[in-house]
Amino acid sequence: MTTTTFTVAGMTCGHCEMSVTEEVEKIIGVSDVRVSADTGVLSVTSAEPLADTEVIEAVREAGYTAVRV
Amino acid sequence: MTTTTFTVAGMTCGHCEMSVTEEVEKIIGVSDVRVSADTGVLSVTSAEPLADTEVIEAVREAGYTAVRV
Repeated sequence: MTTTTFTVAGMTCGHCEMSVTEEVEKIIGVSDVRVSADTGVLSVTSAEPLADTEVIEAVREAGYTAVRV
Repeated sequence: MTTTTFTVAGMTCGHCEMSVTEEVEKIIGVSDVRVSADTGVLSVTSAEPLADTEVIEAVREAGYTAVRV
C-alpha cells in the first residue's frame, strides 16, 4: 500500500473536492482518495505505486492543477 | 415576463453556480436563471411573478441562503 501526496491549486469548496475525488478514484488500483479544498492537499492510496502523471492527468480532467510533493 | 433578483451567500465557484441554477430551474414557470459566484447575484426570469419563498427554498435545497433584493 502506497500513499502519495499532491497539492492541488484552485479548489474552493466541497464540489471541487468531489470533482477531484471522482476523477482520481477512476484510476485503476486506487483504494483511497483524501482531498481538502482548505489545504489543497490530495492524498492518494493505492496497492501499487502510481505514476504521478496519472494522478496529475486525473486532476486536470477535473479542472485543476496538481503538483507532487 | 418578470425578473427577480436575489443575493446568494456562500457560492465560491462554478460548481456552486451550477447547483443553484439546477435547483432554481426546477421551479415551474422559470425561463431563465443567471447566477454569479463572484457577485452573489441571482436573477430569475419567469412568465408570471414567482413567490420569493419558492426561489429561496430552491436555493436552500442547493445548500445556500438567498435574500430578495
